[in-house]
Formats: sequence, structure tokens, C-alpha cells
Amino acid sequence: MELKSYLNAQRSIIEAALEHYLLRKCTSRYLSGPIQYALMAAGKRLRPVLCLAAATAVGGQTEAGAAMPAACAIEMIHTYSLIHDDLPALDNDDLRRGQPTCHVKFGEASAVLSGDALLNMAFEVLSEAGLQSSASQSRTWMKVIDTIGKASGCLGMIEGQARDIAFEGIRISSEDLQAMHQLKTGALIRASVRSGALLGGGSEEQVTRLEQYAENIGLAFQVVDDILNITGDPDKLGKAVGTDADRRKNTYPALLGLEASQHFSSALIDSALQALSIFDNNADPLRAIAHYIVERNR
Amino acid sequence: MELKSYLNAQRSIIEAALEHYLLRKCTSRYLSGPIQYALMAAGKRLRPVLCLAAATAVGGQTEAGAAMPAACAIEMIHTYSLIHDDLPALDNDDLRRGQPTCHVKFGEASAVLSGDALLNMAFEVLSEAGLQSSASQSRTWMKVIDTIGKASGCLGMIEGQARDIAFEGIRISSEDLQAMHQLKTGALIRASVRSGALLGGGSEEQVTRLEQYAENIGLAFQVVDDILNITGDPDKLGKAVGTDADRRKNTYPALLGLEASQHFSSALIDSALQALSIFDNNADPLRAIAHYIVERNR
Repeated sequence: MELKSYLNAQRSIIEAALEHYLLRKCTSRYLSGPIQYALMAAGKRLRPVLCLAAATAVGGQTEAGAAMPAACAIEMIHTYSLIHDDLPALDNDDLRRGQPTCHVKFGEASAVLSGDALLNMAFEVLSEAGLQSSASQSRTWMKVIDTIGKASGCLGMIEGQARDIAFEGIRISSEDLQAMHQLKTGALIRASVRSGALLGGGSEEQVTRLEQYAENIGLAFQVVDDILNITGDPDKLGKAVGTDADRRKNTYPALLGLEASQHFSSALIDSALQALSIFDNNADPLRAIAHYIVERNR
Repeated sequence: MELKSYLNAQRSIIEAALEHYLLRKCTSRYLSGPIQYALMAAGKRLRPVLCLAAATAVGGQTEAGAAMPAACAIEMIHTYSLIHDDLPALDNDDLRRGQPTCHVKFGEASAVLSGDALLNMAFEVLSEAGLQSSASQSRTWMKVIDTIGKASGCLGMIEGQARDIAFEGIRISSEDLQAMHQLKTGALIRASVRSGALLGGGSEEQVTRLEQYAENIGLAFQVVDDILNITGDPDKLGKAVGTDADRRKNTYPALLGLEASQHFSSALIDSALQALSIFDNNADPLRAIAHYIVERNR
């Protein structure tokens, strides 16, 4: 399959759905500007793409649409976490993908409230989808709300953010680094795939296999990110390289060495593909995404 | 009925339930401290008390317990909104009820993330309750998630917070003031009562009447707060008076005059009691709370 055109097509339908939600749910005089700015900024839309692709893997292309509210809700949660992470009190980042961050453009008060609003909006979207569905599908939506809530909360993403801040300037073990990433980014990636698989009508075995896939690619994505900060081409990456070493950041290459990190990322991708072995070609988008993660920017 | 002992008893069972949720849902190395500090600080627990009292009004005392997860979720949302409102970028308050605010005690990064975690935790608690209930009650929980999500989001509380900040230093109309309060505090108070009534098994008419009650007492509470800032006894209130006038804040007395504000608050309470006329003595706690709102600190 041609991954690039697949990703572009998926991004378009996801962004159309996000725009649609904003029009209905965010008529705020004061916050629609910053919320629109943050949510509609250019991005990979990795989490919603994975959510829809997981629904396709278990139920075929026609089932993917059923997972769209979950895909959008997860992108809202991801976006809110970026807005709050960028705040002066946290990472204090002025730029994201070359654009001023939300608080730089709209002020800190708006950034705090817009992040809050996006987290809240995610659950509005999910419960609305649950109310509009049949009784049996409504039960599945409740599972999805539970899945996403646990993944993004203080047993998941938020705890990862807290650890990331606490670890700053401290040399940690590779186990601590892995646990931090599994919480900070892994938990929500896993929830994306699990939600899509549940809404696509996947069996218990299918859901479990897809979660294994997600766990592996989530970690691989982070390891490759760390590697590219050393070996990457700044023009292709669209950002500077060598910055992690300058900031003495805890990264896989710093803790394991470059070569061992490269082996680790390949092994993770192999495990991800292995987890997909029970699926037919409806899982090809997920396979292509796994290959893409290690091969990007080579 | 003896309101004071009723309120004390309700507060005790609500706080025990909140503690129980924290023990299970907040094992975070970094955030359990600030979350515990903010959520378990002394407070009126008005929203959860109203939620349980609404369940009692429609279903009797035995039904109140069924609404406890909703009562706790709403208190978590209320608490997160206070943590974020107190931040330097928003109201910049160092003290709340005489204690250092969350960011003063634990730092801004922890305060931002703890607020996020409490908002998220509210939906974790709600979906967990939904999953643990029967199929028909699960549908009611979905309605409760929808109710609370809409009330606390950017068509509700968050928009009220944004307007409150935007109105600072500007003289506004009493209509704008009322709309702001209905969003900032009214929406969640109304959702508290609606959630309790839904979970208690209330009929459509009962739910509607209780929402009218909530709308009236929510606004009355705010008007009386404004009045007490002029006429109150600082010792009884536990806070300074006259501060609103000093800060040229938009208040009901400033916009309508003191006497008209007093009439307005009494009229609101009359309307609240009128909305309860279809209920038997199971609604007595709600009636007593309405009286208490105008009579406190006299």
C-alpha cells in the first residue's frame, strides 16, 4: 500500500471531523480562537489515524467511521497536553512546529483554559457518541470512555508528564525512562488503538494483539525520535538536531548507546508486526505505519 | 429539619468517598500530594451535597448512595477549576480559605497537572460507575457524563471563567454579569442537581423542576456573596469585606444597588422553593439549603 497517500487521506477526514466538532462545541467568544489555533495546527494526527486503522483492522474499512468520535476525542486530549506542556511553568516552549505556542500567541490564561476546554471536550464528544448509539454500542462507548480516561489520567499520561518534569537534570535508568515514556505517550497511543478495535467490533484476542502492537510502536517512536536527534537531517526533520545532548536529556542513545538503541527500535517494530500476524490485509495500514516509524527520515 | 447536622453528616460521607477514590486512582509519586491537598481541603461541598439531596428528593434516602460517584466527580471538577483559577496567570491568588493555594505550596507545574488530573479523574469515576452498573442504569450514567461534560466545558463553566477574566476592569451590564455567573458557577450547580435526579430515577418533570430550583439557588448564592462582601461580618465570614468595592469588581450591588440586590436574592429563593412544590418531604434538605443561602451569616 502507498502509505503517504493513505495518511494524507486519513488526515483530511480527521481534520474535517475536528472542524465539525469545533463549530458545534466551541462557540466561545474568548476561547474559540486559541482552541482552533491549537487543534487545527499542522500535525501528524498519529493517534486518530491509529484509532481508525485499528477499527479497519478488525472490521474492515466500513467500520472505521464508527470510531471517528474516539479518534477526535483522543486528538483533543493530545492537543491539550501539548498546550499545557508548553506553558512557562512546565517546558516553557515558545515554538511548536515553527509556530508560536498557544500561550505565546493568546496569553497564559487563555492557554490554561483552552487546554482545560479541550480535555473536557473530548469527554463531551465521547458521551454524545454514546448517547446517539444503540444500547449495546452504548456499552462499548462506556468502555471507550473508561479506556481513554485511564490512559490520559494520573495513572497514565499526566503521571508521565509529571515524571518527565521531575527527571529533568537527573540521570535516570533506562527502565525509568521506558516507564516514563510508556506513561507519557505510550498510554494514549495504546488507548487509541484499543478504542478503535473495540468500536470496530474486535474480539478479545484481536484487541489484546492490537494493544501489543501499540505498545511496541509507541516505544519505538520515542526511541527513533531520540536517535534522529543525533543522526537526523535537520532539513528533513524540520527541527534542530543535537539538542538533546546539549541539554543532557535522558534519551535512549544517552543511556544505551546509539547502536543498541537502533537494535532496540528494530526489535520493537518486529514485535509490533508479530502481534499483527493473526490479521488479514485489513491490518496493512497498521503494518505500513510500523515500517514508517523506523524508516522515516532515513 | 436540622440543616447543620444534615450538612455535617453529608460532608462526612462525601469526604470518605473522595478519600476512597484518591487511594485507588491517585497513586502518583508526584501528584498525589497536591491533588490530596486541594481535594481534601475544608470546603462546603455544596455541589455534591446538592447532587445527593436531589437523588433523595426523587427517590428517597436509599437512592442517594447511587449518585455518590457523580457527587464526587463534580467535586473533583469544582476543585480543579479552583486550582487553575488561582494560578498566577489567572486570578493569582495566594490563599484560599486561609491556606496557601496549590501552586504556592507545590509549584505551578504541579498545580497545572493536578488540576488536569482532577478533571480527568472525574470522568474516570463516572465511566467506572457506568461500567459497573446494569445496562439500563449504564444508559443513565451516559446521560450524566453528557450532562456534566456540557456543564463544565466551553459552553459552560470554562466559558464563564474566560468571561470573568475578560470582564476584569470593565463595567458590564447586569445581564452580562448574570450570564457570566450562570456559566461560571450556575452550570455546574445545575448539573449536580440534574445528575442526582437522573440517578435517583426522577421523572422528566421532576428533573426539570429540580433544574429550575438549581438555577435559582445558584444565582442567589452569588448575589448573596456579593451582598455579604458589603454587609457581612468578617469574623463570621472568615474573610475580609469591602474588597469588591476596592477592586471595582462587577457585583450585583454595584450594578443594581444594595436594596435591589437583596430583593433579587429573596425573589430567587422564592422561585427555587416554588419549583420544589411538587415534591414531598424528601425534598426538605433542598428546601433547607435554599433558606440557608439567604440566611447565612445574618
